[in-house]
Amino acid sequence: MISGPVAVVGGTGKLGNALARRLAKAGQAVIIGSRSVQSASQAAAQLGCGLTGLSNAEAAAKAGQFVIVTVPFTAQESTLAEIKAGATGKIVVDTTVPLMPPKVMRVQLPPEGSAAQRAQKLIGASASVVSAFHSVAADKLATDQEIDCDVLVFGDDKHARAKVVALTNLIGLRGLHGGPLANSAAAEALTSVLIFINKTYQVAGAGLRITGKLGEPNG
Amino acid sequence: MISGPVAVVGGTGKLGNALARRLAKAGQAVIIGSRSVQSASQAAAQLGCGLTGLSNAEAAAKAGQFVIVTVPFTAQESTLAEIKAGATGKIVVDTTVPLMPPKVMRVQLPPEGSAAQRAQKLIGASASVVSAFHSVAADKLATDQEIDCDVLVFGDDKHARAKVVALTNLIGLRGLHGGPLANSAAAEALTSVLIFINKTYQVAGAGLRITGKLGEPNG
Repeated sequence: MISGPVAVVGGTGKLGNALARRLAKAGQAVIIGSRSVQSASQAAAQLGCGLTGLSNAEAAAKAGQFVIVTVPFTAQESTLAEIKAGATGKIVVDTTVPLMPPKVMRVQLPPEGSAAQRAQKLIGASASVVSAFHSVAADKLATDQEIDCDVLVFGDDKHARAKVVALTNLIGLRGLHGGPLANSAAAEALTSVLIFINKTYQVAGAGLRITGKLGEPNG
Repeated sequence: MISGPVAVVGGTGKLGNALARRLAKAGQAVIIGSRSVQSASQAAAQLGCGLTGLSNAEAAAKAGQFVIVTVPFTAQESTLAEIKAGATGKIVVDTTVPLMPPKVMRVQLPPEGSAAQRAQKLIGASASVVSAFHSVAADKLATDQEIDCDVLVFGDDKHARAKVVALTNLIGLRGLHGGPLANSAAAEALTSVLIFINKTYQVAGAGLRITGKLGEPNG
């Protein structure tokens, strides 16, 4: 279904590693990218066959349609600079949540409105940014268990967004169109709320479900 | 449980009317406030006994602990000015979502970060603002049906917030502590996303559920 390998930039981190693993299990070729090629290769080897490890820049360049970026907010700018050339003409799936330690339970959106809009601004018009996977607990994603959490997917290009919704479904999650990149603020902000709820209600990985009888998407 | 009547300012609107009705059904004395005393009285009479209608300013002044504000974003500033004196020392429950027609499916948060923070700034330190009820479909709230939607409750004063969580539970909804007023951005933004989902997936009133096994709140 997906042409060429999927690059997971920052794939040695918890979320990236979990996404890479689920994609590989779904039969997808995956390239793990990291600042350190050695770390990337080690992570790829640990996950098993069908995965390779490269620098972030090379991972993006070798990717087919998708370059998934899973780095902390503080590394978003430098990472997007690394992959910009390689990601030309591709879909950049940005997972960045603007958490600003130590106040990770407090919503602090960037001046651009959302980390997703910031990503599109940083990467420029040569790649289409779609944001997703903000609220999924990485430690649950790293297992084979079913995850009681929807994935809201945002993008200004609805065709690119639909492809990321399909990618989300491929790894066993329900992906839902959430609207333009500006709307990513909702899922990004909600992540701080979920961290707050985890602490306040002593819950391991609160998630989010959209309720209502949803039909087929018309856009 | 609640001392004195609850004022629902803007109570002739859909959301306000539905909240007033549920509160009255729960045995609570309710004052409906409106810019027009006549409209307020009519709405109160239609809802039945135990309700009275007054101007917004008088409704706030006669309220016990709670003044619930249910007006469109464009009326937030003028309405808070009307109730400011009467709401002194009380909890102002702000339900404002910063929807900016015609683009109601696009997240557009105010410069203050959230409509809730804007409310606290407008009303000043003499009343404690707590925000809630952003994502609940008013037409479902207007019926006796169970609503498949959690209510995220935000406030900088956690005691005031806890009281609004209890108020939410009183009318048959699950209220959850969502953190400080800054976090209200998440629920406010999510409302635009839900409107987008309603249109995209042809669903009547998509809602939101927080998943995970929640314990008793510790804060």
